[in-house]
Amino acid sequence: MSVLGDRYKKIRQRSETICSPLQTEDYVVQPIVDVSPPKWHLGHTTWFFETFILKPYFMGYQEFNPEYNYVFNSYYETVGARVIRTDRGNLSRPTVQDVYKYRAYVDEAMFRFLATEPFAEIKELLILGFNHEEQHQELLYYDIKYILGHNPLFPAYDLNYASPKTERVDGDFISMPEGIYEAGFEGEGFSFDNELNRHKVYLNAYEISPNQVTNEEYLAFINDGGYHDFRYWHAEAWDWVKTNKIEAPLYWHLIDEQWHNYTFRGLEPLNLDEPVTHISYYEAYAYASWKGLRLPTEFEWEAAAAQFKWGKSWEWTESSYLPYPGFAKAPGAIGEYNGKFMVSQKVLRGASEGTPPGHSRPTYRNFFHPSMRWLFNGIRLAR
Amino acid sequence: MSVLGDRYKKIRQRSETICSPLQTEDYVVQPIVDVSPPKWHLGHTTWFFETFILKPYFMGYQEFNPEYNYVFNSYYETVGARVIRTDRGNLSRPTVQDVYKYRAYVDEAMFRFLATEPFAEIKELLILGFNHEEQHQELLYYDIKYILGHNPLFPAYDLNYASPKTERVDGDFISMPEGIYEAGFEGEGFSFDNELNRHKVYLNAYEISPNQVTNEEYLAFINDGGYHDFRYWHAEAWDWVKTNKIEAPLYWHLIDEQWHNYTFRGLEPLNLDEPVTHISYYEAYAYASWKGLRLPTEFEWEAAAAQFKWGKSWEWTESSYLPYPGFAKAPGAIGEYNGKFMVSQKVLRGASEGTPPGHSRPTYRNFFHPSMRWLFNGIRLAR
Amino acid sequence: MSVLGDRYKKIRQRSETICSPLQTEDYVVQPIVDVSPPKWHLGHTTWFFETFILKPYFMGYQEFNPEYNYVFNSYYETVGARVIRTDRGNLSRPTVQDVYKYRAYVDEAMFRFLATEPFAEIKELLILGFNHEEQHQELLYYDIKYILGHNPLFPAYDLNYASPKTERVDGDFISMPEGIYEAGFEGEGFSFDNELNRHKVYLNAYEISPNQVTNEEYLAFINDGGYHDFRYWHAEAWDWVKTNKIEAPLYWHLIDEQWHNYTFRGLEPLNLDEPVTHISYYEAYAYASWKGLRLPTEFEWEAAAAQFKWGKSWEWTESSYLPYPGFAKAPGAIGEYNGKFMVSQKVLRGASEGTPPGHSRPTYRNFFHPSMRWLFNGIRLAR
Amino acid sequence: MSVLGDRYKKIRQRSETICSPLQTEDYVVQPIVDVSPPKWHLGHTTWFFETFILKPYFMGYQEFNPEYNYVFNSYYETVGARVIRTDRGNLSRPTVQDVYKYRAYVDEAMFRFLATEPFAEIKELLILGFNHEEQHQELLYYDIKYILGHNPLFPAYDLNYASPKTERVDGDFISMPEGIYEAGFEGEGFSFDNELNRHKVYLNAYEISPNQVTNEEYLAFINDGGYHDFRYWHAEAWDWVKTNKIEAPLYWHLIDEQWHNYTFRGLEPLNLDEPVTHISYYEAYAYASWKGLRLPTEFEWEAAAAQFKWGKSWEWTESSYLPYPGFAKAPGAIGEYNGKFMVSQKVLRGASEGTPPGHSRPTYRNFFHPSMRWLFNGIRLAR
Repeated sequence: MSVLGDRYKKIRQRSETICSPLQTEDYVVQPIVDVSPPKWHLGHTTWFFETFILKPYFMGYQEFNPEYNYVFNSYYETVGARVIRTDRGNLSRPTVQDVYKYRAYVDEAMFRFLATEPFAEIKELLILGFNHEEQHQELLYYDIKYILGHNPLFPAYDLNYASPKTERVDGDFISMPEGIYEAGFEGEGFSFDNELNRHKVYLNAYEISPNQVTNEEYLAFINDGGYHDFRYWHAEAWDWVKTNKIEAPLYWHLIDEQWHNYTFRGLEPLNLDEPVTHISYYEAYAYASWKGLRLPTEFEWEAAAAQFKWGKSWEWTESSYLPYPGFAKAPGAIGEYNGKFMVSQKVLRGASEGTPPGHSRPTYRNFFHPSMRWLFNGIRLAR
Repeated sequence: MSVLGDRYKKIRQRSETICSPLQTEDYVVQPIVDVSPPKWHLGHTTWFFETFILKPYFMGYQEFNPEYNYVFNSYYETVGARVIRTDRGNLSRPTVQDVYKYRAYVDEAMFRFLATEPFAEIKELLILGFNHEEQHQELLYYDIKYILGHNPLFPAYDLNYASPKTERVDGDFISMPEGIYEAGFEGEGFSFDNELNRHKVYLNAYEISPNQVTNEEYLAFINDGGYHDFRYWHAEAWDWVKTNKIEAPLYWHLIDEQWHNYTFRGLEPLNLDEPVTHISYYEAYAYASWKGLRLPTEFEWEAAAAQFKWGKSWEWTESSYLPYPGFAKAPGAIGEYNGKFMVSQKVLRGASEGTPPGHSRPTYRNFFHPSMRWLFNGIRLAR
Repeated sequence: MSVLGDRYKKIRQRSETICSPLQTEDYVVQPIVDVSPPKWHLGHTTWFFETFILKPYFMGYQEFNPEYNYVFNSYYETVGARVIRTDRGNLSRPTVQDVYKYRAYVDEAMFRFLATEPFAEIKELLILGFNHEEQHQELLYYDIKYILGHNPLFPAYDLNYASPKTERVDGDFISMPEGIYEAGFEGEGFSFDNELNRHKVYLNAYEISPNQVTNEEYLAFINDGGYHDFRYWHAEAWDWVKTNKIEAPLYWHLIDEQWHNYTFRGLEPLNLDEPVTHISYYEAYAYASWKGLRLPTEFEWEAAAAQFKWGKSWEWTESSYLPYPGFAKAPGAIGEYNGKFMVSQKVLRGASEGTPPGHSRPTYRNFFHPSMRWLFNGIRLAR
Repeated sequence: MSVLGDRYKKIRQRSETICSPLQTEDYVVQPIVDVSPPKWHLGHTTWFFETFILKPYFMGYQEFNPEYNYVFNSYYETVGARVIRTDRGNLSRPTVQDVYKYRAYVDEAMFRFLATEPFAEIKELLILGFNHEEQHQELLYYDIKYILGHNPLFPAYDLNYASPKTERVDGDFISMPEGIYEAGFEGEGFSFDNELNRHKVYLNAYEISPNQVTNEEYLAFINDGGYHDFRYWHAEAWDWVKTNKIEAPLYWHLIDEQWHNYTFRGLEPLNLDEPVTHISYYEAYAYASWKGLRLPTEFEWEAAAAQFKWGKSWEWTESSYLPYPGFAKAPGAIGEYNGKFMVSQKVLRGASEGTPPGHSRPTYRNFFHPSMRWLFNGIRLAR
């Protein structure tokens, strides 16, 4: 098999490994609109390769099931009608077994297709498909955690699940001098279109923490009444807090006056030393406000990234997700990938414990709506 | 085994037989709030026997899982906290296999309990439990049809599913003379509290059709623009038609100018001879209005029931679901069974092809909100 | 002027008298969808005479303003496009002064038209118009009370407003024997179509209270936790109580541990001797349940009406608003008057302090959705 | 009178002049949540001076009416309970006359207070109050236009209303070289806290149009199917277009195949030469996309502002509304002014025909949610 074929195989296998502890039923449900059923992720990533590689480029390829286009399309408006997003959790068919058959069928065709080295253009699409599937692997972690962590029985995903260790650095904030910096991707290797082009930015002098905020530090904010003092919150955040009666990070439960946290191992007493996670941008901002500090911009983060450890959880920045100078959408369906989300989202930088190894880099721009809490996110402070 | 034990076994088995064509995934989803996941029905009916028979009356009975009380309780406000109804479709656990284990566990205990004849009071509860499970068997048919019939792949429930034949009676409307009639249940055997007490009603002379309205007759209403002429509709019905863009009965699809109907066998060309079904009370009333006729009251229906065939589908009546003279709620949780729904519902009389054999009778009062269409209902006209 | 002209004049004047204590701004707002701005009532009742009398029957009549048809039409779907009901409170134009000009213009034409006795058919329409305006006079009272009573400044409508005295009858419930009774309107004079036809009903023996429930009696229900015990409530009522956090009748305010009541005179300490009012059917039913009693049906009420005082406030009955035997809609727009509301409404019998003198009668059927509280309603118990 | 007193008087007078063509009823209504009733603006701006100047600093000042604090407070969470924003249009009291009395009362006290020069700190608050009232003057124009322009009678605000002329510049886009620019306010005179501090930004070379997009140019986008092609739209914008069935700018009406536009003079045929206005950011972005161009960032706009005419309508930029380096909220209620809106808003630069003379400047940062259309906004393109 070619190098690409080998990489394809490993990535495809990893998605299935993530799902291996699940019961059939866990693959099906969609408790909130942001969560997709795991079987949908497995089908959608397969549909991507079938639609953008096999159907246009693999002569004689026979589509597995034309109806699947309707079921597993996501946002790609150029490619036929799509299933309304909120409906995914209502679909009992195709079954989980059907989806695995679909994967096997497409994989088999892909292996044959990748037996010979494809043209450069196809290669590019292929690598986009790899990165696309890796993104859905991370979403699988978020969604599985939400599905199990919101079940009244609080089932464990894996009793032996081990979070990566967090190394805490002693010492002060890192000082960065005023001046022109460069931001954005440049060089060999893959990047998303939203990381291009590398360009100059002017930064004022700033300082940035070498550590993420911990559960213990965040608890002090809660205990000081942080969720009940509007002064720390944006106006829309304050409405969100009151409407949703937010009192703590997602997955925190106060049981007999002891804070517990749902983890992949089940419900556990809160580990104070871990970085706080599952907080919205609104909460990250409010915490920083309460501290008299602020969140870094994405450019401040990127300029200093070599000087601190990152990768435990995506870090909210103060930056909105906007196009870089010279950004242009690719033509066709692929062009829908990133550009159309460039409004009303905040940038997160770094990576999380759910990010596939090697998937992220210092120029990587993750983005979510400021109210989102089901991803693995965190807080790094600046001033 | 006792007679009751034998009856228990048969009823319990029938629920599982209904579900036997399902895939695991079909047991889990809840596409609309009115539909419950099949596994929930299987668990909830089991919970009923465990909670109202085994726990209070079977010495030494060990509860299967205390958390299930939270998961499988429905409306019974007196028995602990309940799962919010809209959340049922988000629960991947307990799994389908867990639910079947729960059934087996409770059944085994019930068999032991029913080895000896229980006291009269328990017997009454038991028979209520039988009828309760039979009602959920009918709901299982409604809900399974909805789940499969709203899947974009339109999977069949059973390719060999045979609807009961409809015998069409020739001849005119049945004439009923003015006078005092009796309505309500009396005598041996089981009835629900809402059928009591038997009492006198005064009816004006009326006529009632020996047949239900057919798909062909209903199609004439559609083709005459019935869904677009407010004059046939109640004010709130007209809002409902416009808000929901209703154009035909549920499960009807116009494909290439040919009406199709989703049945348990899958999508089929519309059978014109079948009674129309899956129409709301609003539509039943509008159809009658368009015909210059009306729906019978529940008392008119009951008084004439011996003179026509019924049982193909529940028949909307003009009557609201209200207490009979002398109606009183039973004390405790059982008392919540019927009385608390006696507002904003219309009565349906008869039975449907989903009704368990022997479950209904001429005094039986079914009731649903006037907008409901996912049940097996139909139209009989009066004047 | 003719007798009819004289009656027209008095009725039209009365609407304006009701509004005379208002400020211009009070005529404009619509705090909830059920409340209409007073200027809309004044315009709509005028539009009725213009549309159904003057335009078709008064040769040479020149419409005041064709656009008003769009603004002042209500539900009459047969007569052109209508203003969406929720939009009424957004219309600053036509101004209050414009509406009074419109009234004067139409009145002047009507006086000329009524100088001579009209044909019988027109007379009937005219009398319907009188009764229609009287109904809106009562709605004006409800709506004005809502507008002023929900303003944070709690302005009085009229500091000298005097509620009619309530005469309390000593003694027991009135006993009514089992048998056939007649219900419905018959004879000379006006009635609405929903009161026709007079027909026989069979009633079981029952007893009915000679008095309405007082504030003091209702307070005992509140103090006994009636709003917090689901057992007294219908299922949909209990949802309503919890969703809307209902704790007391509309207009009751607990200020420094003393119950106050907003009346047309402003905020006052609660008068314990007055009949309780501004409670939904849900609350009336729950109160009766708590008492171990029930509400009468509309036929029980009508059969006994000669034996008790009524007229202080509309009395919720257990009956749903349904057509009487032989009921038929009138053809054309007038036919929309009552029939199209005959679903999901409860019947109220009697009259209220806002009902124009002579407007009601023992066969009069008022109807509202069971959740409505802004009308003047009350509770009479039966058993 | 002092210079400040004189300025106070002129600004206060201007608010009343803007309202002078209104009928009493026009002051009261709130057709959508974003629009406030004109009388509320008149009261709220008065409350500002009473609350922040007179009550704390004018010895012996007697509050006009303590309840007004509840009625006229807006977002200032630190200053007592507030009226829920959506309720403003339900308040018929205080009447318009009451509000004018309130203004006269506060103005009289302010004149006395300003007879002598206040301390520097008060002066600062006072100037903030002037700018605050000017902002509400502009909102008055938006809200009055919405109230009258959404009335089915389409009344004119002023038949002689003259829009400022738009001077169209011939010639090409203005070229701006790459490099470091300065942005933000510096120097004497008033600025809002969000314009501080002046700081360096690095801009790539860009070009910016000397003209705003006209109605004629925008019409070409409509005629080319721009509202029906998702490729030009952000994902959330496309949902917005479909949900709200957007087909043209607000106030455009297609009557007999001729585009009309509601202006302050009433409904008029569309003037093709005028700059397009009343379009959301979503539409501005989609238009630019369709043209193969883009919107400028706020820094690009500011750097080039001296080279083009601006002031006809606020110009959407690509920038999100975020804090400048070193931004800090002022302590207390005044600190709530701007900072708490710094999420989910886009920046607009320039000024509009509704902006009070002298109120804006090249560093002024206006901001609105990207879906807002009722303000006077427009499009300037860049590349």
